[in-house]
Amino acid sequence: MNIQSKPFLYLQIADRLEKQIIDEVLKAGDKLPSVRMLCREHGLSMSTVTQAYYELESRSLIETRPRSGYYVCIPPVKRLAIPETSSPSAINGLLTPDDLVSQVYMDREDPKNTLFSLGMPHDDFLPIAKLNKGLIQAMRGLPASGTSYEPTQGNEDLRREIAKWSFGWGADFSEKDLITTAGCINAISYALMAVSNPGDTIAIESPAYFGILQLAKSLGLNVLELPTNAITGIEIEALKKALASNKIKVCLFVSNFNNPCGSSMPDEHKKEAVRLLEHYHVPLIEDDIHGDLYFSNNRPTTCKTYDESGLVLYCNSISKTLAPGYRVGWIAPGKFKDQVLKLKRYHALSSAPLTSEVVSIFLKNGRYENHLRKLRQSLYHNSRKYIGAIADYFPEGTRVSQPQGGYFLWVELDKAVNTVDLYQQAMKQHISIAPGRMFTLQAQFDHCMRLSFGLPWTSSLEKKLQQLGKLATNIQGASSSSL
Amino acid sequence: MNIQSKPFLYLQIADRLEKQIIDEVLKAGDKLPSVRMLCREHGLSMSTVTQAYYELESRSLIETRPRSGYYVCIPPVKRLAIPETSSPSAINGLLTPDDLVSQVYMDREDPKNTLFSLGMPHDDFLPIAKLNKGLIQAMRGLPASGTSYEPTQGNEDLRREIAKWSFGWGADFSEKDLITTAGCINAISYALMAVSNPGDTIAIESPAYFGILQLAKSLGLNVLELPTNAITGIEIEALKKALASNKIKVCLFVSNFNNPCGSSMPDEHKKEAVRLLEHYHVPLIEDDIHGDLYFSNNRPTTCKTYDESGLVLYCNSISKTLAPGYRVGWIAPGKFKDQVLKLKRYHALSSAPLTSEVVSIFLKNGRYENHLRKLRQSLYHNSRKYIGAIADYFPEGTRVSQPQGGYFLWVELDKAVNTVDLYQQAMKQHISIAPGRMFTLQAQFDHCMRLSFGLPWTSSLEKKLQQLGKLATNIQGASSSSL
Repeated sequence: MNIQSKPFLYLQIADRLEKQIIDEVLKAGDKLPSVRMLCREHGLSMSTVTQAYYELESRSLIETRPRSGYYVCIPPVKRLAIPETSSPSAINGLLTPDDLVSQVYMDREDPKNTLFSLGMPHDDFLPIAKLNKGLIQAMRGLPASGTSYEPTQGNEDLRREIAKWSFGWGADFSEKDLITTAGCINAISYALMAVSNPGDTIAIESPAYFGILQLAKSLGLNVLELPTNAITGIEIEALKKALASNKIKVCLFVSNFNNPCGSSMPDEHKKEAVRLLEHYHVPLIEDDIHGDLYFSNNRPTTCKTYDESGLVLYCNSISKTLAPGYRVGWIAPGKFKDQVLKLKRYHALSSAPLTSEVVSIFLKNGRYENHLRKLRQSLYHNSRKYIGAIADYFPEGTRVSQPQGGYFLWVELDKAVNTVDLYQQAMKQHISIAPGRMFTLQAQFDHCMRLSFGLPWTSSLEKKLQQLGKLATNIQGASSSSL
Repeated sequence: MNIQSKPFLYLQIADRLEKQIIDEVLKAGDKLPSVRMLCREHGLSMSTVTQAYYELESRSLIETRPRSGYYVCIPPVKRLAIPETSSPSAINGLLTPDDLVSQVYMDREDPKNTLFSLGMPHDDFLPIAKLNKGLIQAMRGLPASGTSYEPTQGNEDLRREIAKWSFGWGADFSEKDLITTAGCINAISYALMAVSNPGDTIAIESPAYFGILQLAKSLGLNVLELPTNAITGIEIEALKKALASNKIKVCLFVSNFNNPCGSSMPDEHKKEAVRLLEHYHVPLIEDDIHGDLYFSNNRPTTCKTYDESGLVLYCNSISKTLAPGYRVGWIAPGKFKDQVLKLKRYHALSSAPLTSEVVSIFLKNGRYENHLRKLRQSLYHNSRKYIGAIADYFPEGTRVSQPQGGYFLWVELDKAVNTVDLYQQAMKQHISIAPGRMFTLQAQFDHCMRLSFGLPWTSSLEKKLQQLGKLATNIQGASSSSL
């Protein structure tokens, strides 16, 4: 990038612009910077810039349009770019969970792919027109139309609305107890940094959401995966034993409709877990991102409901219910409020006022509750359809979780079926699943996978599940016939 | 928060709602949740909830409105809340820099305060109407109106526009070289996590932006403050010596219009610094947040301009130029791209699509350049006015920086004037300044302060500077007469 290493200045400028045209940073039809602007920005003479543009014209890369300026030619004499540096993708049994996660995230980028792998509401389930109304209202109502920084703690109206909302699961928050964040994982990131240091040990469920595993590893934590029941979540006895060893610095549980296995801790377990953690003075980060997506009649409680000492850092967001792209989440950090507030100031300064305000408006006028009622119904309906299809199309012996809320099915296949193989075969048919090994740092879950039922049910979707079941059946058959 | 610890369920519900009314989470005139909703959410019987509401009515806290529901009384029989737990604020010479920063941030919350302490564009300088147009365009144009996650790397159009824009200071980026972030400090946070570990040493300018000092400390880094010239920035000889010691893991420079002292590294220094860092294989995080706010005719280069090995992680945003609250920034992480991309995925998953798209639109149609031309003129004009007022009103012997861009004046008073004292006295007159000790972890700059010239020049503003000068004169006089 050293602009002093070539003899003629005008040729350097011409070469750099040519590179931008070849790289399609400047596309066919784009206007080039004016001669005057280039002069000013680079401190060049008019004649140098004009000469550079003549040079590009002579290479048939740009053309003048009278009284308008210089444009990239349509069609430009396109030099074929050299092939990109190869990056062999090591998709095989030796993939690390991290590689797998990167791979699965990339599956999003091809619209041909059916994404059973990612848990988020499909656009069809989002109240987009109503949100847009709220956005215009926010734009008009906020000071400076939301272009200024907020107080570090976040939009006060939004925090008050969340405080009211949380009453439903037994929280007596005021707006002072809450800090807004850029989504739930951002809340968890601050929580982890507030209560742990590199080298500490964190106890989590197993299987666990890969985002939590990766975040914990990247912060230098040792991860202890605790035995977890597919219905009732973390095993209390195992937690007791782990805490008694005095090695645990922090716990992190997804206590309702766990990702991936769908478990929910019964009230008695939540109470007992909080009591144990208080006894050992170990903070608990609670990820309740699916708590509002219950299929039964009642909103489940949380561990925070039973927290009297402030050791629970409660995290949530609207990313699974309303608008993932708004990046609006929150944390009730209990006694760790000062630390979390400082971390937010250090790493991000301020949340984005506009989308915070939209969510606040949505909560305030009762639209959120109305929307959730419909979303819960759709998800419940979907979960039944998906489970039915798995029963119909998957090989005998397949086990599947029976979640009472959330987005996910945890599917256990015959031990002979490696779900990384299944993933690779399925991707050839543009079907993306989340193999079990993404959800652990141990050698387990190789024959499991997570399927999201967040995509609307259609006959073509059913066909995709049928294809997937057939692939699983084939792999299972091939393995048993080779024995 | 344990809802099982009292005898009658209806009394528990009533007490919790009363607390929300006293805390003003539920305000006078607010509608209470419907009986049906409370029943559903808590799994309670109709009679329990109805009884709870009767109880609140009997306490004159709520009232029924026929065919509408229950409302908090206007005016409610307001019980006086007990005084808040005291939090003695230790504003004195023993304040840590961190305390001071927290304090100064809180000064924002009282609109009566004149904020010379914070460097951001005043609303009057922002093209709010045009941004709002862009917002509506973004809302209509984006898939799902911006409610979905983006690819982790960020909005591709925005990255392409930034790539074009960066041509002006000698960068040959394509969109693949850039990752969007939630503002510049968020970019710096990822950069620091990508290239350093707790216990490593980072070399920075001195004085340095307090946000960088605090972030580095919170990540467990040792901070080495290098000698810095008020005009030319970091001293190259000092850098050479520090690097030769082999203890430096990473450098972080604000190479153009440094915050707080206004220095800019000359091209030769930028080149030499990059050459040295390459020699020692030490990465440089470059914060160029003020680079586009130059007062001269030319956009200054950056260290990244001369980076051929990919060791420079270049960070920037539109927070100082266009819309702080949009939280749109970016990083060109050079050879550390994979690490930074992973960190963004771990800590935040996705940027916010809406505001990214607005900035992309703004860049694309040339509005950014037009806006910047005006903003630069206003800031230049302001800087002259402020410097004039300091010359007129401040005590003799006062020194002031002569920045060629950006937002800040660095003011050096007589050694007898402690600027933490000055800050406290000025705040009694609702004038907020940034004392020098916020900008260092060492014992220095006690007689210095940073003044932002980001507020529009008015006669009442001039009066505030006059008041400030008078206070400084008084402190200086008192100290010399006591000798």
